[in-house]
Amino acid sequence: MSRRERIEKFIAPYRVVGEGRFRLKSIDPADIGPLTGKEQAKDLLEEGIEKLAEMQEKLYAQNKWAVLLIFQAMDAAGKDGTIKHVMSGVNPQGCQVYSFKAPGPEELDHDFLWRCARCLPERGRIGIFNRSYYEETLVVRVHPELLARQHLPDECLGKDIWKHRYEDIRNWEKYLSRNGVLIRKFFLHVSKDEQKRRFLSRLKEKEKNWKFSHADVAERAHWDDYQRVYEETIRHTATPYAPWYVVPADKKWFTRLVVGAVVHDALESLNLEFPTLDESKIKELEAAERALQAEE
Amino acid sequence: MSRRERIEKFIAPYRVVGEGRFRLKSIDPADIGPLTGKEQAKDLLEEGIEKLAEMQEKLYAQNKWAVLLIFQAMDAAGKDGTIKHVMSGVNPQGCQVYSFKAPGPEELDHDFLWRCARCLPERGRIGIFNRSYYEETLVVRVHPELLARQHLPDECLGKDIWKHRYEDIRNWEKYLSRNGVLIRKFFLHVSKDEQKRRFLSRLKEKEKNWKFSHADVAERAHWDDYQRVYEETIRHTATPYAPWYVVPADKKWFTRLVVGAVVHDALESLNLEFPTLDESKIKELEAAERALQAEE
Repeated sequence: MSRRERIEKFIAPYRVVGEGRFRLKSIDPADIGPLTGKEQAKDLLEEGIEKLAEMQEKLYAQNKWAVLLIFQAMDAAGKDGTIKHVMSGVNPQGCQVYSFKAPGPEELDHDFLWRCARCLPERGRIGIFNRSYYEETLVVRVHPELLARQHLPDECLGKDIWKHRYEDIRNWEKYLSRNGVLIRKFFLHVSKDEQKRRFLSRLKEKEKNWKFSHADVAERAHWDDYQRVYEETIRHTATPYAPWYVVPADKKWFTRLVVGAVVHDALESLNLEFPTLDESKIKELEAAERALQAEE
Repeated sequence: MSRRERIEKFIAPYRVVGEGRFRLKSIDPADIGPLTGKEQAKDLLEEGIEKLAEMQEKLYAQNKWAVLLIFQAMDAAGKDGTIKHVMSGVNPQGCQVYSFKAPGPEELDHDFLWRCARCLPERGRIGIFNRSYYEETLVVRVHPELLARQHLPDECLGKDIWKHRYEDIRNWEKYLSRNGVLIRKFFLHVSKDEQKRRFLSRLKEKEKNWKFSHADVAERAHWDDYQRVYEETIRHTATPYAPWYVVPADKKWFTRLVVGAVVHDALESLNLEFPTLDESKIKELEAAERALQAEE
């Protein structure tokens, strides 16, 4: 089995592309796949990160594809840590991370994709959305008062609003993929118990205190609602051109390994190479070299 | 017949909403509808502009709907003059005009809707696109070298590219209309002879010289290609939620009257009213008044 086939096999259990009716319960947050423990993962991740940096250089040099990675999760599931650990080897000039907080007045005065559309990656770059327009069918659905804040005309608030949002998101991602944007979406799937442990450690350890917010704990009361809307969102927006990966997130080292492997696999699928020069361009370079050599 | 019905009847011959196979030849650039001449149009236009300004104030106060007006045409068909004459009565704070020139390097490095998506009107505003993403199936189709400049991966350059662009545009406009953006699109339909007359007058009259560009005349060589891609674009992107209006453009006064009537009809369809205040808000205002009166 080639390295590429091994990676494909490793990530396959977590991929959702839209066939059938996906169930969140079918993936165990504590799963560690075929691995035995953390130590085994370390070398694999390091090796992967090195290869990632190489491929990203080619992506940048070629300047044709853009890559969009979307991260969604419950609080403390490890989005920030995963982005940090998986992407730290990559040249920041070719990688843009956007963290979307609650929308402000100017953003609320536009269509719901607007603020994310502005931040789409340029060709040759990897764009990372830490939260995204998917919040529009997640937190906005769990908290209807947020929908009211969007000032939509009554005519746009019918019973089909969620169905329409799913369809509009699918169509938009199809459009993007047709225009050279490769999309991969991650739901970091943490258990309620593990979230509690992580919140408690944020309260106990001083250097983690800044990460704690009272609101995060309040949101736990809506846990089941969130699981339901995540399941439904993934079901309706998983497509071959923009698949979801539901990544077990109770073990941070495993989350990072899976995400790293998916990004790796995505870049590999593009068959990236440094641009080759045609004859006239080569002659140009030779002439430039001669001119430099001839300088006094 | 009410005023509203009269307007609807006046603009109906020029509306394309997607049924059947639209033919550009079915509309005569020199048509002046039921009118007899310029003098008759003057009062109608002035009356319409006044009413437009009133409705735009309500649109702004209500802050729910956005209105997007898209203007496309061959050179010298009168886009700039129409925007000027129809919209000049409207408060500029509630009206944003964007003129899209040839895309620059940052724009070319993004998906083709990107630069227009950033400029979409906020709720409560009228946004005007003087040229738009429709250039992507017009000038880009007539001049394939412009497509090459977009750096798309080969996988995205298949034979279905135009079909996909039409579909993506339709889907995007459907999404926008579901999210409170009312869309009206205008093709100012000028004849080749009239364009020639207008170019010659730009050359003769000193104060019109600045409007003349040699490139415009060169484009006349592609006249038939442009007519063909306009016809096809209109056919594939005319929908009930984002209709095209093919406006006769050989008589400037008539173009302006039709465009004014369409904008008028569009705003009227929203049944705009100033927001009404609920009881608690009225009490707030009363308290504020008392506090002001009680000041020393």
